[in-house]
Amino acid sequence: MAKKKFARESATIMTEMVLPNDTNTLNNLMGGKLMHWLDVVAAIAAQKHSNRIVVTASADSISFKEPIALGNVVTLKSKVTRAFNSSMEVFIEVVAEDIPANKKIMTHRAFFTFVAVDQNGKPIEVPEVIPETDEEKEHYDGALRRRQLRLVLSQRMKPEDAVELKSIFNLPNTK
Amino acid sequence: MAKKKFARESATIMTEMVLPNDTNTLNNLMGGKLMHWLDVVAAIAAQKHSNRIVVTASADSISFKEPIALGNVVTLKSKVTRAFNSSMEVFIEVVAEDIPANKKIMTHRAFFTFVAVDQNGKPIEVPEVIPETDEEKEHYDGALRRRQLRLVLSQRMKPEDAVELKSIFNLPNTK
Amino acid sequence: MAKKKFARESATIMTEMVLPNDTNTLNNLMGGKLMHWLDVVAAIAAQKHSNRIVVTASADSISFKEPIALGNVVTLKSKVTRAFNSSMEVFIEVVAEDIPANKKIMTHRAFFTFVAVDQNGKPIEVPEVIPETDEEKEHYDGALRRRQLRLVLSQRMKPEDAVELKSIFNLPNTK
Amino acid sequence: MAKKKFARESATIMTEMVLPNDTNTLNNLMGGKLMHWLDVVAAIAAQKHSNRIVVTASADSISFKEPIALGNVVTLKSKVTRAFNSSMEVFIEVVAEDIPANKKIMTHRAFFTFVAVDQNGKPIEVPEVIPETDEEKEHYDGALRRRQLRLVLSQRMKPEDAVELKSIFNLPNTK
Amino acid sequence: MAKKKFARESATIMTEMVLPNDTNTLNNLMGGKLMHWLDVVAAIAAQKHSNRIVVTASADSISFKEPIALGNVVTLKSKVTRAFNSSMEVFIEVVAEDIPANKKIMTHRAFFTFVAVDQNGKPIEVPEVIPETDEEKEHYDGALRRRQLRLVLSQRMKPEDAVELKSIFNLPNTK
Amino acid sequence: MAKKKFARESATIMTEMVLPNDTNTLNNLMGGKLMHWLDVVAAIAAQKHSNRIVVTASADSISFKEPIALGNVVTLKSKVTRAFNSSMEVFIEVVAEDIPANKKIMTHRAFFTFVAVDQNGKPIEVPEVIPETDEEKEHYDGALRRRQLRLVLSQRMKPEDAVELKSIFNLPNTK
Repeated sequence: MAKKKFARESATIMTEMVLPNDTNTLNNLMGGKLMHWLDVVAAIAAQKHSNRIVVTASADSISFKEPIALGNVVTLKSKVTRAFNSSMEVFIEVVAEDIPANKKIMTHRAFFTFVAVDQNGKPIEVPEVIPETDEEKEHYDGALRRRQLRLVLSQRMKPEDAVELKSIFNLPNTK
Repeated sequence: MAKKKFARESATIMTEMVLPNDTNTLNNLMGGKLMHWLDVVAAIAAQKHSNRIVVTASADSISFKEPIALGNVVTLKSKVTRAFNSSMEVFIEVVAEDIPANKKIMTHRAFFTFVAVDQNGKPIEVPEVIPETDEEKEHYDGALRRRQLRLVLSQRMKPEDAVELKSIFNLPNTK
Repeated sequence: MAKKKFARESATIMTEMVLPNDTNTLNNLMGGKLMHWLDVVAAIAAQKHSNRIVVTASADSISFKEPIALGNVVTLKSKVTRAFNSSMEVFIEVVAEDIPANKKIMTHRAFFTFVAVDQNGKPIEVPEVIPETDEEKEHYDGALRRRQLRLVLSQRMKPEDAVELKSIFNLPNTK
Repeated sequence: MAKKKFARESATIMTEMVLPNDTNTLNNLMGGKLMHWLDVVAAIAAQKHSNRIVVTASADSISFKEPIALGNVVTLKSKVTRAFNSSMEVFIEVVAEDIPANKKIMTHRAFFTFVAVDQNGKPIEVPEVIPETDEEKEHYDGALRRRQLRLVLSQRMKPEDAVELKSIFNLPNTK
Repeated sequence: MAKKKFARESATIMTEMVLPNDTNTLNNLMGGKLMHWLDVVAAIAAQKHSNRIVVTASADSISFKEPIALGNVVTLKSKVTRAFNSSMEVFIEVVAEDIPANKKIMTHRAFFTFVAVDQNGKPIEVPEVIPETDEEKEHYDGALRRRQLRLVLSQRMKPEDAVELKSIFNLPNTK
Repeated sequence: MAKKKFARESATIMTEMVLPNDTNTLNNLMGGKLMHWLDVVAAIAAQKHSNRIVVTASADSISFKEPIALGNVVTLKSKVTRAFNSSMEVFIEVVAEDIPANKKIMTHRAFFTFVAVDQNGKPIEVPEVIPETDEEKEHYDGALRRRQLRLVLSQRMKPEDAVELKSIFNLPNTK
């Protein structure tokens, strides 16, 4: 597939209000609900990039710091960073706000990957991504390293073959 | 807190049936919905271990392989693997079944961490975990390495300080 | 169908946390929501026993004693007790816990019946049940009496024909 | 409490459309969902009669005959039949319709009981019921017998003391 | 289609209890949730009149005055007022009650229109409406004026052609 | 309140995927569900403009043309157009897309009004709106006319006093 698309063409924004059923006993948003929203907003970006049905392939590790309270407004922005054959990495940025109190509660970042499939659920090639802004370029470059980490963590690549990944440990690439 | 508890005391089983609203256009379970269930079943195990309100601290990377279809029965089993002061790592194992067709669809494994908090949301110490079975001991031992990976990935530990983690790259610990 | 299955092969465990939308004005679990959970966990046990699609045939009378509060963890355990051609009786035991307060709130018991059906919704024979433990044997023996009570209450059996049922009134079986 | 109220003053009508998430694999309404609706419509009737917060005390046995399909319109009508101190029995009648096909699918009848409580959840006396129509009088008279059956089934009354109940077995009241 | 039907034949009553997830930060029913209920109860009335699948064509402007609180019981009554070929106007009346406090909170009125369609989604003619009561006759007469207002507001009719509509401005019909 | 804010400061984007439970028998989005989303996205814009809790005051008439199908992605964009003391008018634009088929399904426009309130639910003044783009200016100018129409339709203004409104009927303002 020769066609290429700009990263920005997949940009998606989702806004959610934290409702009672989304919260735990302390009236804060449950982590699982946030992961659900991340999956939906990222899937839509992947769908926009590929013009295909997409299925979640992986979610990178996520850490939750500050609590997000009942009534807060959560804005999730997603964008495809890079494509590898039939798979796409999507970057998601989350901001939670207590608007009446006029303060931003939290900033959050996550990476999910998706596979584009045809009507029978078989993987199908997707366009390449053209990064334009500095952030898009940085995400594009880091995508290879994160991909190796995923493969190592899911035991589909041997650690010693993860050339790109080693760099985060600042170790000489001896292989 | 001198008290210790057995890993098995936190064991929790959750069974869910995949309903229409949990599925994507291909009639398969959405990844985000599964993450939501993982969070709930893991939180209950952490609550049982600590007898405290718990909040999600992190979800390790998860990869989704085979699709889980509408009408499948999903069984999630969770158990605390190890405690670190106020935080607990929880292991979750997922099996999806198409019972009328008499086949298991998928086996899935994930790790989440939780922090025990008091009524004001402040972290509070939890009992240590006593592993008994071989699997529990293996999870207990691996918990330290996974903890370092989480700290490195969330940039709260320098890669060169992640002594345990380096072992997965089979590199000499030069520090 | 010559095949027989052990009662324990159908054992199912479901764990639910009481969320805001499940509660009434007093912040306690609504009876109707609990009945919904009973139906789901019992249906899965019946599905496991029969390896068929199952439909609810009846729910025996249920009485609600102590309230179950918002945030409580509810554990439901189900197991098929006995089969009659295409129908199965399922026993469900419910425990509610306030884990941070370290106390069990309530123990609850219920019986539901299900019919196994083929893809066109027509009833189809299921395996017989082999009870092993004392409790399983007691449930197996009582199943006939409860079946007669259901038939009498739904006016499909004349009271004077309900031989087994009369025993609960300690009356001579004069017929 | 000297005040009495007519049965009709508590009459409540609820109409629901069967949505995808309410159905099983055969696209028919799940039994548990119908029980949930029964509980809500009956609770509102009990609330109207007592002008109090009410909690579900029991649901009598229910049998499900014909399936109710996706898209059907379900009409539930409830009315208090009789009061006993702080408790009320409610009768519910259910009709399901496939309106475009111009046919009624099913007629269903159920009895639930509720207890009126004050803000602290303590039982509080309710008005007596005045039945007017023939059906209301029949329900009023039968309420005592059904009450004894509930007490016997929940083991709070000895079968030999259930004077009213014995009549359904056409046996002489020998006590 | 020569057949005519009485307005009362489409009468539908829906009762809902305001649950936590239906409310905003002030614990009052969200406007959007009420609109959702209005749409459902009105669609059922239109379905009863036409014995067809119906799709929402428009919702007239709605104003929200008094807040409806968590735990309130909301009763919605709908009835078809008049038919125009394949479209029907439905009148809905809403009453909210705080039953334990023995007071009606709010009375609300709205008009929605629906189009009857066949299995392929194509519009299909519906029976005419026969109004009987004074209110039904008033709604029948006003339907033409409201229809013109809808057409003008959605720019499908020129204001100067809206003969009936002008009357609400008490202006001479100069055309 | 001297402070003024730009219209664009309240701009909000919400993206939703049409799930099975949001659809009618023809697998198209129910009108009531779309109204629910409109209310939420508009409320968030009003909250951003006022930094207050807001309650829905009215929804202008909405007409539904083309159906939105299961699996479509719906993007809703909202922005405050003008403020009147404690009330704000919000404009919402809706686009539905079938992304795999690469086509936009529908474009939709609606107006809602909200009132900003304090913690006790009492109305409180909000900043004025500064329109910048041509569209923002056009919406700002039309807001007065739409406000008069709302007042006339809810019978809080006499038609003959609705000076601005008369202009849509191209009639001389004779008063």
